Amino acid sequence: MRLQGIIVPLITPLTDDGEPDEPALARLIEHAIAGGVSGLFLFGSSGEGPLLTDATKERLTAAAVDCVGGRVPVLVTASAPGTRPSLELARRLLRRGGDALVVASPYYFTPSQDEIFDHVAAIARNVDAPTIVYNIPQATRTMIEADTLLRAAELPEVIAIKDSSGDMAHFQRVLRINATRPEFSVFQGAEGVVGLSILRGAAGGVLGVANVAPALCVELYEAARARDLARIWALQEQLTDLGRLYTHSYWLAGLKAAVAQLGLCTPTVSLPFAPATPEAQAAIRRDMAAAGLL
Amino acid sequence: MRLQGIIVPLITPLTDDGEPDEPALARLIEHAIAGGVSGLFLFGSSGEGPLLTDATKERLTAAAVDCVGGRVPVLVTASAPGTRPSLELARRLLRRGGDALVVASPYYFTPSQDEIFDHVAAIARNVDAPTIVYNIPQATRTMIEADTLLRAAELPEVIAIKDSSGDMAHFQRVLRINATRPEFSVFQGAEGVVGLSILRGAAGGVLGVANVAPALCVELYEAARARDLARIWALQEQLTDLGRLYTHSYWLAGLKAAVAQLGLCTPTVSLPFAPATPEAQAAIRRDMAAAGLL
Amino acid sequence: MRLQGIIVPLITPLTDDGEPDEPALARLIEHAIAGGVSGLFLFGSSGEGPLLTDATKERLTAAAVDCVGGRVPVLVTASAPGTRPSLELARRLLRRGGDALVVASPYYFTPSQDEIFDHVAAIARNVDAPTIVYNIPQATRTMIEADTLLRAAELPEVIAIKDSSGDMAHFQRVLRINATRPEFSVFQGAEGVVGLSILRGAAGGVLGVANVAPALCVELYEAARARDLARIWALQEQLTDLGRLYTHSYWLAGLKAAVAQLGLCTPTVSLPFAPATPEAQAAIRRDMAAAGLL
Amino acid sequence: MRLQGIIVPLITPLTDDGEPDEPALARLIEHAIAGGVSGLFLFGSSGEGPLLTDATKERLTAAAVDCVGGRVPVLVTASAPGTRPSLELARRLLRRGGDALVVASPYYFTPSQDEIFDHVAAIARNVDAPTIVYNIPQATRTMIEADTLLRAAELPEVIAIKDSSGDMAHFQRVLRINATRPEFSVFQGAEGVVGLSILRGAAGGVLGVANVAPALCVELYEAARARDLARIWALQEQLTDLGRLYTHSYWLAGLKAAVAQLGLCTPTVSLPFAPATPEAQAAIRRDMAAAGLL
Repeated sequence: MRLQGIIVPLITPLTDDGEPDEPALARLIEHAIAGGVSGLFLFGSSGEGPLLTDATKERLTAAAVDCVGGRVPVLVTASAPGTRPSLELARRLLRRGGDALVVASPYYFTPSQDEIFDHVAAIARNVDAPTIVYNIPQATRTMIEADTLLRAAELPEVIAIKDSSGDMAHFQRVLRINATRPEFSVFQGAEGVVGLSILRGAAGGVLGVANVAPALCVELYEAARARDLARIWALQEQLTDLGRLYTHSYWLAGLKAAVAQLGLCTPTVSLPFAPATPEAQAAIRRDMAAAGLL
Repeated sequence: MRLQGIIVPLITPLTDDGEPDEPALARLIEHAIAGGVSGLFLFGSSGEGPLLTDATKERLTAAAVDCVGGRVPVLVTASAPGTRPSLELARRLLRRGGDALVVASPYYFTPSQDEIFDHVAAIARNVDAPTIVYNIPQATRTMIEADTLLRAAELPEVIAIKDSSGDMAHFQRVLRINATRPEFSVFQGAEGVVGLSILRGAAGGVLGVANVAPALCVELYEAARARDLARIWALQEQLTDLGRLYTHSYWLAGLKAAVAQLGLCTPTVSLPFAPATPEAQAAIRRDMAAAGLL
Repeated sequence: MRLQGIIVPLITPLTDDGEPDEPALARLIEHAIAGGVSGLFLFGSSGEGPLLTDATKERLTAAAVDCVGGRVPVLVTASAPGTRPSLELARRLLRRGGDALVVASPYYFTPSQDEIFDHVAAIARNVDAPTIVYNIPQATRTMIEADTLLRAAELPEVIAIKDSSGDMAHFQRVLRINATRPEFSVFQGAEGVVGLSILRGAAGGVLGVANVAPALCVELYEAARARDLARIWALQEQLTDLGRLYTHSYWLAGLKAAVAQLGLCTPTVSLPFAPATPEAQAAIRRDMAAAGLL
Repeated sequence: MRLQGIIVPLITPLTDDGEPDEPALARLIEHAIAGGVSGLFLFGSSGEGPLLTDATKERLTAAAVDCVGGRVPVLVTASAPGTRPSLELARRLLRRGGDALVVASPYYFTPSQDEIFDHVAAIARNVDAPTIVYNIPQATRTMIEADTLLRAAELPEVIAIKDSSGDMAHFQRVLRINATRPEFSVFQGAEGVVGLSILRGAAGGVLGVANVAPALCVELYEAARARDLARIWALQEQLTDLGRLYTHSYWLAGLKAAVAQLGLCTPTVSLPFAPATPEAQAAIRRDMAAAGLL
């Protein structure tokens, strides 16, 4: 499996009373695949993974795998503060059919870089699926340094990295992995720098906004692969402007409210997080209309 | 139930290969109760709660409750990034016999103060046990502000707070709860300020170091209740000096290595965290000898 | 010179167009001395020191020394990012008559603890006045660790410390200086913990709010020296409540607006900082009325 | 004046006893100009501006202007915590012949975005030279947000921005200035992202490493202007690798030690900062030899 292109970190649709909403999940998946995404990334930050029970994640993995029917790979995230809970969750999700596993840095406690590596290695070596390493210091509060990512990329079980730090000096160092493992996939997870990243050699982007505007993301990916600079700059500006929808409420509620505007799901977020207020939803609606998405 | 005195946030003893070690658990509990502690606090930060699987926490709750046999209350912690996983875990643990539930701020994502309150309230109202709120911004990365704690203390289901922020201006504001709810228990969780806190009105301390030196902690508690200033200052200095044992490795590994020096358990920490190195263990041994604990 | 009691970190009164206002300075000094303060601390954070030109600080030093007429010591602050500018400023101010010099950690760049010590030592040894070390990590972004403060206190030229970190575990370690240098003065600079600090052995407080309510601060100091616990707690609560006046605008503008409510000066703050808005000034007025200060 | 290309934020050479070293200044300037730089930037962070006395900065401005003889523009930095000291310093330096003025965000205190704008505007409007805004949140601890920079760029007196935040999402938003002011110069100050930045439209780079390897920086600038992607990537890698010289000591000492290896000046840093240790200097020598610079 060589991952590339735009992968959607799927939001987890919920009913008004907070239960997983499988019909909405199917709609979201069709919307993303119709938009040209080349993979689904479940239970990341945009997917509210840490806010869902393990049973819900199992059930939704099965539902997503069923719905996708092999059209694109399905990546499942098993992030947790420690190795044992993460490994246990990984196995439960992979049994439901995920094609690859995503592992983040431990959180709550503060691991050293060696401990982060040990965490990734212990999980990657003990599951029956290829592993993707996920650097999201905004949530885990620990940066996975470039040297640690390069070391993780030496593990044959690790096939890709999603880096959401937004630090392009760091990201370019991470791309050195491709000098020795050209088939390894380094994904950019920060929307504001994805155009530059793909131009610079990234395999693609894992972008929350692909839940809202998958086709725009795919268009940007293609422009960047074609090295069409003027087109990259212009599409990146559109994507950056669309980022305004995160600013009217907590970003997670904003993203979900934007997808709700498309009629694909409710704006409900997992407790204790509040959905976007009516005022925020109206502002998001205006942002989306200005972007030609409504 | 009115909680007061020294409560031990029990470390979770593990065998060399990382399995929960129930015989060691029994030894630790006897050591703490012999030292005079008035409660056990399971699966907090010192107890590596977030690093353990839910099944392990269930099993150890049952074992601890059985071992304690009602001599002191057993508090079980169900911290998680979101409300549903936290509530589900809370119910599982309380079914095994915990006397009270501990809930921390959500982590991984960044909740507002209102969302923290909603999290606490949703859990406290939906379990069959009194609730203790746990403020540990070093781990959750979110401070529960004094106003939020005062608001939580208005919930009849909430009977206590453990505040480990170490911020004494904040802590004194939290103590205002007792003006309207004199039976409410505010515990200090930061060792370096516990003497002052109890003198100032705190119900007691929930102190990691009580795993190592419970009698010293209890002695300090009693001096503070007696308002014996010279004695408080002197005992606090001893406790502060003992804090050196946290500095030779990651604090969690240091605490566990110190208990291991007493022959009560192994120094093994949950993966991916490494145990204290032999050099660190030697330094801890020296610290403990200097404190008269070996 | 043995410093103790309440020292006022004098705000720097400005005319409406931002010029130093010497008549107001005289009024402020009389207000503080009438309230019982035992020293003036010029050009700290409350005094907007880093926002004033060196010439203004020279002129105001001379004016303050003249106005005080030896009734209490006048401390002048010469904080700067590096040693040479700080030393040069120190000499210029001391030539105008300051009784002691205040030196903070370097800022802008990030010094090591050794470099902080070297900075303090180089200045203390090269001026003709005793030196006070000022720990204000909120502004300098560098904590002066307790070990570094203990090392600085071994210099015979250093006679006192003002610690505004608010960290009471740290502060108690700093108080160990008095075990070997009983005449050394450790001052608390954080208002919310000053009662506990003096009770615990601090020489006194250097408190911004002493510009507004010097008598209340002095009353708290005396209660703490007398170990009258109930009175300390009650007066500390009053002082803490008064801290609300910092919350309606940037704290510096709030403090100045509060003094302006007393008719002692204008609310003008040094550029580019904006004065409290009319709404904030009204809220401050209400806070002060509630505290019986108007 | 339209600034573009590589501008060197000149280090300030000191004699062994810390005095400004004018002969070394002349050597440094000739080295940089021979390497192709298109401007000198004095007294920024690399130039230790905040560590020097105003008199030293005046003297070195005159010396640099004299030495340059109009071959390239000389930019002088007047950063300070507040507007008045900054404006006073700006005027003193410009009287000695600087061609343009650099102003950073206020530091020590924490200004709002409006207050940062007011600071820049008050200075830009009151000096007889064009102004460059300098965003260096690592030192000032305040990010100048993109919206504030766009607002500052509407001032006719402001002709350029140096942004050292390293945040490429932010930087791309700042580049929108050129949509309405095509002659405005946006410089990248973070070495690890300078290749991408110039490719994306930046006017050039203000790079500390240009003190060490000006020709390499200029070569990268030219590759980026020519949109020669393979060459940009290769040269950026070289520049990134060279960044290792910052890692053996505090970055400022490392940069200076590297220039000292070229025989251009001593490794002395302004007090209280220590020069690179002999071990660090040896490591820097190896880094430079590996880069073909020795």
